[in-house]
Amino acid sequence: MPGGARAARRISPNLALDQLVAERQARGERITHLGFGESRLPVFPPLAERLAAGASRNAYGPVAGDPGVRAAVAGYFARRGLETDPAQVIVAPGSKALLLALQLVEPGDVFLPAPCWVTYQPQATLAGKRAFGVPVPAHCGGVPEPGALRTAVRAARAAGHHPRLVVLTLPDNPTGTLAPPRTVREVCAVAEEEDLLVVSDEIYRDILHESAPPFLSPAEVVPERTIVVTGLSKSLALGGWRIGVARFPAGPAGERLCADVASVASEVWSTLAGPMQAVAEYAFAEPPELLERLRRDAHLHGAVAGAVHDIVIAAGAECRQPTGGFYVYPDFGPVRDRLAGKGIVDGESLQRHLIEESGIAVLAGVHFGDAPDALRFRAATSMLYGRTRDEQRAAQEAEKPLELPHIADSLAAIRRGFTALTAG
Amino acid sequence: MPGGARAARRISPNLALDQLVAERQARGERITHLGFGESRLPVFPPLAERLAAGASRNAYGPVAGDPGVRAAVAGYFARRGLETDPAQVIVAPGSKALLLALQLVEPGDVFLPAPCWVTYQPQATLAGKRAFGVPVPAHCGGVPEPGALRTAVRAARAAGHHPRLVVLTLPDNPTGTLAPPRTVREVCAVAEEEDLLVVSDEIYRDILHESAPPFLSPAEVVPERTIVVTGLSKSLALGGWRIGVARFPAGPAGERLCADVASVASEVWSTLAGPMQAVAEYAFAEPPELLERLRRDAHLHGAVAGAVHDIVIAAGAECRQPTGGFYVYPDFGPVRDRLAGKGIVDGESLQRHLIEESGIAVLAGVHFGDAPDALRFRAATSMLYGRTRDEQRAAQEAEKPLELPHIADSLAAIRRGFTALTAG
Repeated sequence: MPGGARAARRISPNLALDQLVAERQARGERITHLGFGESRLPVFPPLAERLAAGASRNAYGPVAGDPGVRAAVAGYFARRGLETDPAQVIVAPGSKALLLALQLVEPGDVFLPAPCWVTYQPQATLAGKRAFGVPVPAHCGGVPEPGALRTAVRAARAAGHHPRLVVLTLPDNPTGTLAPPRTVREVCAVAEEEDLLVVSDEIYRDILHESAPPFLSPAEVVPERTIVVTGLSKSLALGGWRIGVARFPAGPAGERLCADVASVASEVWSTLAGPMQAVAEYAFAEPPELLERLRRDAHLHGAVAGAVHDIVIAAGAECRQPTGGFYVYPDFGPVRDRLAGKGIVDGESLQRHLIEESGIAVLAGVHFGDAPDALRFRAATSMLYGRTRDEQRAAQEAEKPLELPHIADSLAAIRRGFTALTAG
Repeated sequence: MPGGARAARRISPNLALDQLVAERQARGERITHLGFGESRLPVFPPLAERLAAGASRNAYGPVAGDPGVRAAVAGYFARRGLETDPAQVIVAPGSKALLLALQLVEPGDVFLPAPCWVTYQPQATLAGKRAFGVPVPAHCGGVPEPGALRTAVRAARAAGHHPRLVVLTLPDNPTGTLAPPRTVREVCAVAEEEDLLVVSDEIYRDILHESAPPFLSPAEVVPERTIVVTGLSKSLALGGWRIGVARFPAGPAGERLCADVASVASEVWSTLAGPMQAVAEYAFAEPPELLERLRRDAHLHGAVAGAVHDIVIAAGAECRQPTGGFYVYPDFGPVRDRLAGKGIVDGESLQRHLIEESGIAVLAGVHFGDAPDALRFRAATSMLYGRTRDEQRAAQEAEKPLELPHIADSLAAIRRGFTALTAG
């Protein structure tokens, strides 16, 4: 095909790693896969029933979603202290699509926590924006350190850029921590001072561990400038079903932004698939059996993330205690000298060593916008629940999931790997 | 929400009209809805079975689609004379998403038939491109008149633009016609001369009427520079399920373009929902019962489009004989003087008059990039198959669908409306 020579773009590094691991496993290699942010659990059966029942929804329907699903989502937010009109809601094939649409319609540059989810920065580039990473505080990820954010915004403005958006992830991917209310308020105060919109990515909101601080959404603090996005991929293990949601501010400016995103939606994805809208209508209504499923799954996520946290600490890393989601984000900086003797000098060589020497797949911090030389990576602990549906179901139902043989075995392999990593 | 004042973007005009009509119908108004390009037919039951069986596909899976669905799509193209490796295929939530991704990754400006589908031009704008409309020939829509395309490309280049893409729609929306092989070859020759990539939108390919010329894809003529997009929204009445496909050229440059689109996919929509991939794997394999369904539906589409064509001709319009899809695109220019006496002077006033005076919803040509003063519109005849599933099923099964009372009644209402429109 004619055209100038140009390097191919890469696919998102987390999806690329997942494909690589699947290929190696298919060749018979034994890999402990901590590299992909997916909750490997079965579909909750009532969701499958709604999907099947939604088959007759084959007409295009409204771009933003049918009235029923938008009302259900509005109720979901209202139960969390955010009164919401269904007109403030758009459903879409994943929150990714909504995040991109937001970036396409709102001019100005974007400020991200460093580290942060792999997709924010490439989306900013696709939308023709500059993205600025601001380091997270020591006590949590998912938010830029507030003072550093203020400094970075002012410096960017002085340099001729146009700061407009700040993205928060509550709870966070990749650090697995939830910013406490005080920190959220401080970041919101900076957003207010500097006239930034806040994009609050709350896709892990319904996976809080017992150790989590109270959840405070920026939409409670600066409602007129906060857009919340969420979805069912994480809390209900429906990544492959692609169901996302955005909630826009009330009032004329919020209505305009919502209409702008709907406009982009109409040109890019038309609408969320009708059967998926039927699923979302059920899930966001949160019937008791679903809440019970969420409660049990959150218990599992917390137990396994906590166990991996303890392992990396024992191996000599520093690591924030996970409080939400299903990740840990250790820092092997304290044992840098020992690792250097094995040729491990940065995140990439650490990632490579772990998969080659111990068959442990993780994603280096550099892929999340962290410093390349940082000896940090994300371990997605949600991949440990089992290879088969039976194992996964047993994990969901267990009061003490760490005692299940298949989980205990995986944890033992991880313990061996990290012990070997930092052994003298 | 703070930020500069700015008019909200519009949603795609066809989706907006569909919502308007639905609201008016909900208020009890009787509207003959010819304004929306949707095949109002029930889901073919085996497709619903595949959807339900696909519920367990809740993992993200590969960005471009699972091997099974990509192989099925490759087979679909191979049966149409286009040998295809599964690696040349990407599935996505609708062909819209793929068309946008293509525009995002391939630099340069885009040439469109005028009139053309409402979404190409806004997507070009979203991707930061200039879009140039080139009038279609007298004998068919969906392709720029080849000589005019050459002239327009050269003029654009001389003016400092960067011509790179030409979009063809085979068969066409909005004209409901299929460009014959000679015309396709002529356009491909211009693409070759001027080094343009051809985006061949073949989403109506499996809805050909008995009157259609042979189908020739640009991918058969200039394979190294043609990207084909298609989907199940039209032929299988699955607009609300959002299943689209792209086929990239073989060879290194095609592989690079395919990888680029997969990269964008990974940042915007991750993958086509797993249950929808199960549906697509079945549909693109084209088992005999599905081919029989497609054959019967194509018969229905052709019969009703032909009947509406005859009505507008009898009312004094010029109109190409429909040969594919489910549209007619009449031109009331020959009765311009008579319409002027009723205040109808352009496409918009014609559209408004028809819905206000006769309760007939159509979409004016200007929304498709046609001249604003042209007395042309698109009538989507696929909306006439019935209000209920039973009526729709009867239409699908009828050897003589025009004789069904509900279809005959709708056609009579349309005849009355157009007769009144052009009456002295």
